[in-house]
Amino acid sequence: MHLKDEKFMRIAIGLAKKAEPLPNPRVGAVIVKNGKVIATGYHHKAGEAHAEVNALRKLGKGEAKNSTIYVTLEPCSHYGRTPPCTKAIVEAGISRVVYAVEDPTRKVKGAEELKRAGIRVQGGILQKEAQVLNPAFYKVAKTGMPFVTLKSACSLDGKIASKSGDSKWISSPASRELAHWLRAKNEGIIAGIGTVLQDNPRLTARLEGRRDPMRIILDSKLRIPLDAKALAGGRAIIAANKGCDKKKKEKLESMGVKVLLFSGKKIPLKPLLKKLAMLNITSVLVEGGGETNAGFVEEKLVDRYYFFVCPKIIGGRDAKSPVEGEGIVKISKAQKLVFEKVEKIGTDVLIVAVPSPEKG
Amino acid sequence: MHLKDEKFMRIAIGLAKKAEPLPNPRVGAVIVKNGKVIATGYHHKAGEAHAEVNALRKLGKGEAKNSTIYVTLEPCSHYGRTPPCTKAIVEAGISRVVYAVEDPTRKVKGAEELKRAGIRVQGGILQKEAQVLNPAFYKVAKTGMPFVTLKSACSLDGKIASKSGDSKWISSPASRELAHWLRAKNEGIIAGIGTVLQDNPRLTARLEGRRDPMRIILDSKLRIPLDAKALAGGRAIIAANKGCDKKKKEKLESMGVKVLLFSGKKIPLKPLLKKLAMLNITSVLVEGGGETNAGFVEEKLVDRYYFFVCPKIIGGRDAKSPVEGEGIVKISKAQKLVFEKVEKIGTDVLIVAVPSPEKG
Repeated sequence: MHLKDEKFMRIAIGLAKKAEPLPNPRVGAVIVKNGKVIATGYHHKAGEAHAEVNALRKLGKGEAKNSTIYVTLEPCSHYGRTPPCTKAIVEAGISRVVYAVEDPTRKVKGAEELKRAGIRVQGGILQKEAQVLNPAFYKVAKTGMPFVTLKSACSLDGKIASKSGDSKWISSPASRELAHWLRAKNEGIIAGIGTVLQDNPRLTARLEGRRDPMRIILDSKLRIPLDAKALAGGRAIIAANKGCDKKKKEKLESMGVKVLLFSGKKIPLKPLLKKLAMLNITSVLVEGGGETNAGFVEEKLVDRYYFFVCPKIIGGRDAKSPVEGEGIVKISKAQKLVFEKVEKIGTDVLIVAVPSPEKG
Repeated sequence: MHLKDEKFMRIAIGLAKKAEPLPNPRVGAVIVKNGKVIATGYHHKAGEAHAEVNALRKLGKGEAKNSTIYVTLEPCSHYGRTPPCTKAIVEAGISRVVYAVEDPTRKVKGAEELKRAGIRVQGGILQKEAQVLNPAFYKVAKTGMPFVTLKSACSLDGKIASKSGDSKWISSPASRELAHWLRAKNEGIIAGIGTVLQDNPRLTARLEGRRDPMRIILDSKLRIPLDAKALAGGRAIIAANKGCDKKKKEKLESMGVKVLLFSGKKIPLKPLLKKLAMLNITSVLVEGGGETNAGFVEEKLVDRYYFFVCPKIIGGRDAKSPVEGEGIVKISKAQKLVFEKVEKIGTDVLIVAVPSPEKG
């Protein structure tokens, strides 16, 4: 029985991967009757039908009776932008529900409600595999902060820019394309004002059919020029100090830019991330210079690193490095990582790393 | 005919790889008669018999008559520490000689001498594959300088030491073992006095059955302590400025250390390398700090890079970087490389790179 459950859950996981309904989680569903798949569905887009409902819609009246539904996430039981899936499942006469991961938002417990309706319910099948589908969704639910990916592109000798700040181009066209895809996968991009003043980047994903992420700029003193490319189109958030120039703040707001105010000389990162999560930004890509990046590293806020290592030697004792800040004294205090993936991208090497579960 | 030649030459190349007769090149030989291999040999150790002679010794009198010998390097025709191979080939009655690469040292042309003796000679079979066996041998012959490999171990964020200079340990035990093997593969290790004063390294290969490389320390002002571990056992060369402390120089020499004198504030690297080649050091491993490494990079003296990228974030705007020096201003002026190999070593990633044949 268990092996069969895993087989159908694996199909559901495959379906979940077909869309990116940000900020909602990716979910897939499979309806099985007499050992055969009779319908499948997945969640296409936030605000539209959930995976379970999409699968049920493919069946005629009564067809789902006494079937089993496999879902990668515990069915919801609340009225959000769509009616609860538990209701649809009960009404369709489904007799068994198998899900992979508990819904961590759990406004009302979907599994409990299904049981109360007399349906057999089993959770935890291929839980790990299904969790990986939606790291940001689970991170926000657990910590109230978005999933943080830090991306950098450096030369073999670890430089992100020459001593004069030039950085065009260190990485290959293939890596830069992948970096844009990474932007599109995140709901926000965080950059420091230093990068904005130096490079005047657009901070958009530039991928057809993809929504650009929200641009989030750390700019305590509101030094950003009003014609910065990163403000074009208005979808931008600036994190500034409470004592910043109020007139400039109003001007920015009149351009459609949101200005969040914090105390302290440097923007405090945890409060910023919590605020972003409340604005429904569940994943951010940090593309800072060495100082911005160091802030996230030092507070252990990075969930995943994407480093493009490129076939160049830049040199220079005053060249820019991907992580600067104060730095540690003893190597034993370094942030330990695990390399998850090492891959050639064009002429470069992409290293994907996560913090090591080991202490230190 | 050509395909058969390649087949036997490939066997000879495989044989060449069996030993590391530094500073001599690796050479393999195969004797073929009536389409069958009747003897093989390779050059085991400098000062001992060459590959051709080792193969011939396996045969009885007259057995090699009218055979073909395949050698990865043009047979020598001079009396060095061993008699010329051309003589042995002629005396054995071999009728055809096929070699892969011309002898670039060419004191006397072996191929010419064989032809004069009435032997059919063909060169250039699998030349590229055979050249790769002995990059240092060919480089010295062409430029009068040793083959230069630059090795570094850095964190994912490109640091070779924390701001305080701590570097123990950034790389994994598996990488450090490979680094010792790399030392054993080279005839010299070059380090700057900064590294010697900071870490007091032994600069030995610590591999059983392997000769330790010559330690070469760049130390303009002879600041090295007499009890430095890098001087233990005497096999060391110090490159110093002509104006250095003569008494200390004499003391070092009395310990068996060779002191080479150069003019200029910094040790001039090309003259140093030429001097090392004359001392029969045909390959060196540069294990400098950022400043020493930068000297070699800036003068485009590096033939191959071995970078271990390790799963740690060290951070720090004042942490040490693998290549420092003045550095470039525009990225378009960076030293372009080609990644030859990317490999997981323990928890680390080893990137082997060579300068790009492209300009820039």
